Amino acid sequence: MWLQRTIAFEPRPRGIHLVTGEVLEALPELGDFGVGLLHLLIQHTSASLTLNENASPEVRRDLEAWLDRAVPEGASHWTHTLEGDDDMPAHVKAALMGPSLTLPLREGRPALGTWQGIYLCEHRDRGGARTVIATATGSPRP
Amino acid sequence: MWLQRTIAFEPRPRGIHLVTGEVLEALPELGDFGVGLLHLLIQHTSASLTLNENASPEVRRDLEAWLDRAVPEGASHWTHTLEGDDDMPAHVKAALMGPSLTLPLREGRPALGTWQGIYLCEHRDRGGARTVIATATGSPRP
Amino acid sequence: MWLQRTIAFEPRPRGIHLVTGEVLEALPELGDFGVGLLHLLIQHTSASLTLNENASPEVRRDLEAWLDRAVPEGASHWTHTLEGDDDMPAHVKAALMGPSLTLPLREGRPALGTWQGIYLCEHRDRGGARTVIATATGSPRP
Repeated sequence: MWLQRTIAFEPRPRGIHLVTGEVLEALPELGDFGVGLLHLLIQHTSASLTLNENASPEVRRDLEAWLDRAVPEGASHWTHTLEGDDDMPAHVKAALMGPSLTLPLREGRPALGTWQGIYLCEHRDRGGARTVIATATGSPRP
Repeated sequence: MWLQRTIAFEPRPRGIHLVTGEVLEALPELGDFGVGLLHLLIQHTSASLTLNENASPEVRRDLEAWLDRAVPEGASHWTHTLEGDDDMPAHVKAALMGPSLTLPLREGRPALGTWQGIYLCEHRDRGGARTVIATATGSPRP
Repeated sequence: MWLQRTIAFEPRPRGIHLVTGEVLEALPELGDFGVGLLHLLIQHTSASLTLNENASPEVRRDLEAWLDRAVPEGASHWTHTLEGDDDMPAHVKAALMGPSLTLPLREGRPALGTWQGIYLCEHRDRGGARTVIATATGSPRP
């Protein structure tokens, strides 16, 4: 069994956003899968996907704050500055967090840990709409 | 062909641990696969999985030391401090290393490079037991 | 449908290299896949794979420059120094960027964003030839 769908995310402010619910709502057919894998690719180079803590908004703020310190805007070593001060740091942050996630499917849904949620990380000030390609494969649910 | 199994890892001290043998011992059925993929997800947000050098314990110590310097405990910018000084840095380290690995299967086992081993990175002082969901798919071994 | 092939990359200088074309040329059979996944693993611990901006060489230079600053050579905290000053930083950089990529396949090719390209990151001064295992699975193209 294969499923593939494009998920469109509306523009979000710069920061780390919890999107588990939005991803699952876009993929109701996951309920038909028994054992499988769900792959998500964000088709951009200044936004990223990761898994992390799904309860405290502080964790998302602190992750963003760490990224801003580790990859500072306006540093003298940046040469790719044509698209704005936030652009090149956004590329580095996207590489650090990664453009994709692969999740196990079990009994019709992603087998995440209790505290795990899907983060969409918007690294640009005005990144605009973002596109994610979701691809699932697996055995039919008994 | 699909295989899915939960692997329970006993509590380990904070640090980087080589677990290739433990993963393979938990999945004897991998021998039945010809070409395929093995996916591992750690169901936690303060521990992570990566691949790196399987020979020198120094590499694991130095990776841990780098993470401790790059993501310092007790920094004034952390706001999520309720669960201890090691908690929020552990979330950031887990995001940097990543929660999952996907490995190619070939002739019944992961096609790793000579020097590659699976690292379980325990980022908390007392992280407790850790759970990994292993999912394999592939063609039968001829 | 399954496809697996070893791709040999000639030695490249230290730095970030765009290899999308080289990967696709090595895998002409991807055209037979409809919906699927393509997985790439670099079988080394001091080189890495990621996706990022495919247009500006400045982005690749700036990513390399950031990595060199974030993971400095010759720092006093490194203990694994036997294989040269560039070796242990290369292991850390490889862990940060990651050893593998999984990409969605759609209508016979990877469904990348307009600006996304595959980066082979060579973190060593003289890393030599590098090997990537490509594994594809999917449904036949209608």
